[in-house]
Amino acid sequence: MGGGRASPVAGVALTGADVDFVAGLLDLRESQPLALHATARVLAQLAASPIFNVLDPRFVTRHELPLDREVSLLCPDGCPSGLVVEAFAVPGKVALYAEDGAAAPELGTLAGDAVGLRVGAGDRSFFYIPACAGMTASLAGRLRGADLVLFDGTLWHDEEMIALGLGTKTGARMGHLSVSGPGGTIALLAPLGIGRKIFVHINNTNPMILNDSPERAAAVRAGWEVAEDGMEITL
Amino acid sequence: MGGGRASPVAGVALTGADVDFVAGLLDLRESQPLALHATARVLAQLAASPIFNVLDPRFVTRHELPLDREVSLLCPDGCPSGLVVEAFAVPGKVALYAEDGAAAPELGTLAGDAVGLRVGAGDRSFFYIPACAGMTASLAGRLRGADLVLFDGTLWHDEEMIALGLGTKTGARMGHLSVSGPGGTIALLAPLGIGRKIFVHINNTNPMILNDSPERAAAVRAGWEVAEDGMEITL
Repeated sequence: MGGGRASPVAGVALTGADVDFVAGLLDLRESQPLALHATARVLAQLAASPIFNVLDPRFVTRHELPLDREVSLLCPDGCPSGLVVEAFAVPGKVALYAEDGAAAPELGTLAGDAVGLRVGAGDRSFFYIPACAGMTASLAGRLRGADLVLFDGTLWHDEEMIALGLGTKTGARMGHLSVSGPGGTIALLAPLGIGRKIFVHINNTNPMILNDSPERAAAVRAGWEVAEDGMEITL
Repeated sequence: MGGGRASPVAGVALTGADVDFVAGLLDLRESQPLALHATARVLAQLAASPIFNVLDPRFVTRHELPLDREVSLLCPDGCPSGLVVEAFAVPGKVALYAEDGAAAPELGTLAGDAVGLRVGAGDRSFFYIPACAGMTASLAGRLRGADLVLFDGTLWHDEEMIALGLGTKTGARMGHLSVSGPGGTIALLAPLGIGRKIFVHINNTNPMILNDSPERAAAVRAGWEVAEDGMEITL
């Protein structure tokens, strides 16, 4: 197929199966070559929803991301892209639409539902962790001394959805560490000696998303950036 | 739940289960009250893809649209909205992702996969038919003398996807009448005495989408408008 409306997206690596992470696949559609990388758990969720068959397997290849092992990201033709990725489980939960509706799911028990990615090229790498429900010794060890970390900035405060009357769940129940407070992301990542820290996946209830908010100022003072549409990062 | 990020969308009536028609449901999400109306065939496609369970049934009610019978569109609380809708089968096909991968599906055989809608309030009504693979005597009869018809403007020419190197399917195979030519939409709807005609669902390969194209000029000369983002229509 020609390039008349080609996309520059040659591959996708998923960090979970929640709508935030997978709904965009439906915009890529039918006949655009694409290499799709995800854990077995996430691939199973995609397979369970036939609507993702719009990603025609003649063009879109699905590849299982193992945990804790670096693999080459592929180009759509199957050749290595020059990028490597390592997926690792982070505290989190199964996708909302796959919850069984009864009790809240236990966080972090299903390895591969929520993962972080270390993406590398040559001797440089960065971490991409858009959903993370807690800090572990293992995760802290990975992030220590990293050049660049993009991290879950969903909520400023664990109860902000409730306080705003927009939901009944805490951030913890939703699978997210919050940014602020003594047990929050700013505090937890501060001692890890990370070169550059950028919040991503910011909810529209998080006041940090506003350029002129006190919360934004506090995040910046703490050495964080807040991602924005069209942002380009040079590693 | 409060109105802090409420949407004015109180209800949705679907004309098919193709990605174009249903992917937007995933942006409405979790706790926004919504009444969702669709045919049994389309509801079955939604039910088959668990990702649509993000539409929490405590907030999003699903209602079967019968064919050829006017029903009240409901508000999320179950009360009539003041709008009525009648769904009717039009020539079309099952959603792309639900094709069985073998032969091309026979058009129009599965009543309820592709429908048009007549939407009314008081003594005014309009037709919304964003995907239609052919004209039938029954459809022509419905549209004759209508105040307003919004109709499938996907392709200008049946083979334009092939000519541009962007696909291997004709418009007919994709389930769309084309706009131009002796068997096209402009010609077929011309004798029906319709008050106002607006093309919708216009593919990015259709040159009519460009304001300054000869095809746009031809459509306008033929008495058609071309829908645009944010368009408001007063009936």
